[in-house]
Amino acid sequence: MKGPIIGIVGGRGRLGAWFKNLFEEAGFEVMVADYKTDLAPTDMAERCDVVVLSVPIAVTEQVAAEIGPHVRQDGLFMDLTSRKTSPLKAMLDHSNCEVVGAHPLFGPREDSIKGRRVVLCPGRGERWFGWLKDLLESLGAVIRVTTPEHHDRLMSAVQGLAHLNTLILAAAIQDLGFDLDELDAYATTSFSHLRPQIARTLRQDANMIASILTLNPDVPGAAAGLERQIVRLRRVVEQGDYSACSRLIQELRGYFGVAPEGLH
Amino acid sequence: MKGPIIGIVGGRGRLGAWFKNLFEEAGFEVMVADYKTDLAPTDMAERCDVVVLSVPIAVTEQVAAEIGPHVRQDGLFMDLTSRKTSPLKAMLDHSNCEVVGAHPLFGPREDSIKGRRVVLCPGRGERWFGWLKDLLESLGAVIRVTTPEHHDRLMSAVQGLAHLNTLILAAAIQDLGFDLDELDAYATTSFSHLRPQIARTLRQDANMIASILTLNPDVPGAAAGLERQIVRLRRVVEQGDYSACSRLIQELRGYFGVAPEGLH
Repeated sequence: MKGPIIGIVGGRGRLGAWFKNLFEEAGFEVMVADYKTDLAPTDMAERCDVVVLSVPIAVTEQVAAEIGPHVRQDGLFMDLTSRKTSPLKAMLDHSNCEVVGAHPLFGPREDSIKGRRVVLCPGRGERWFGWLKDLLESLGAVIRVTTPEHHDRLMSAVQGLAHLNTLILAAAIQDLGFDLDELDAYATTSFSHLRPQIARTLRQDANMIASILTLNPDVPGAAAGLERQIVRLRRVVEQGDYSACSRLIQELRGYFGVAPEGLH
Repeated sequence: MKGPIIGIVGGRGRLGAWFKNLFEEAGFEVMVADYKTDLAPTDMAERCDVVVLSVPIAVTEQVAAEIGPHVRQDGLFMDLTSRKTSPLKAMLDHSNCEVVGAHPLFGPREDSIKGRRVVLCPGRGERWFGWLKDLLESLGAVIRVTTPEHHDRLMSAVQGLAHLNTLILAAAIQDLGFDLDELDAYATTSFSHLRPQIARTLRQDANMIASILTLNPDVPGAAAGLERQIVRLRRVVEQGDYSACSRLIQELRGYFGVAPEGLH
């Protein structure tokens, strides 16, 4: 059986190249259009069954508007960006074909899609949605299906809170003027787990993190939530309020379902 | 050769019991006094060569004042608490023997002292300091020697910032009302590393963390540092200032010596 031809806009980017490889290994013919290729994205779109947008979040809507009218009416228009509300709206507004928003919850440093999560948000149509879901699942991915609005709200915590929290730790260490080699030499077990977290975050594409943090309208609320908590905890430590601090930990244990280690 | 007799005040606590076991396996006779033992700590002190305080930080100074006068003049008085300035001062003020402040940078959940760090702060005398350092090194510990003031300043970052940062993340997730199972179902690779960090922190003795955060005079400064950074970053995300956000990450890469992953 000859499968659909897949075209990736931004296929020379790291994530685009990763998915090109994935689709090729699954036996599909894959075309690529990038700002460096002779093939124009609009020409490519007309020659493919599935058009995948893999461009920076900041330009996804604009590129969707350019490419959308060229996607075949019986084809699939999909993206891979870490926001879903506005890219999906742009793809729907500028095309007549079936549309799916996809967000792989991992980066191109992973060796395989096996066991990795991909969020799918149905946009228009069911046929291609079923094809994409079945394909990714057959390759070992774990699929989560939700609305774009709910996806973006969840990502304000999963990506937003996580990145904000790691960045303020790193920035505070720098701001307070600590010597990193010395902190490492005196690291407790807890601290030694945070250092690779900082490195993992800083190694990622700075523009991608900046997009995640500045383009998701739910992220400012997440940032305000972190701010409320440090204001509260700063007051607790300034006042040396041992009981309030201990109580906070016990409350959080309840919420997170964590039992304390055995005490005497 | 018959070694010194070691007495642990608080030897029924988890860390005290851990060190009792360590010393016994190293071939020493170890005595224990705790609030549940018949043997009073002061009586024990008079019968030992080395007296180890392993009591909660909040009462260390008071217990040091009680026990100190009973430690033999040719003996060693030492503690295991995670602050060093005030416990060391209390041990010095209330004894005439040699004094060392020790802080194991790990908890009693570790299987072995091999490769684990212990900070030693010399208080008074060199003979017992050398004995303790040689003993711990022979058992595989990595020893860091510094002043109590420098230790406490470093710990405001290594323990203070680390605990504050993890606690505000957990508290913000609760405050913003996210469903934990759902966050886990949609976890990115980064987020999936933060969840065990939260659990590891919440599993620890709540009173110990509360003591670390409320009794170290350098911790409020660390908390204020975190607050400054989230205030700054919250403004950046509210204003959607993509460039400022990307610039922050690039600055931090310089400080942390982290190179970005290859980009197209």
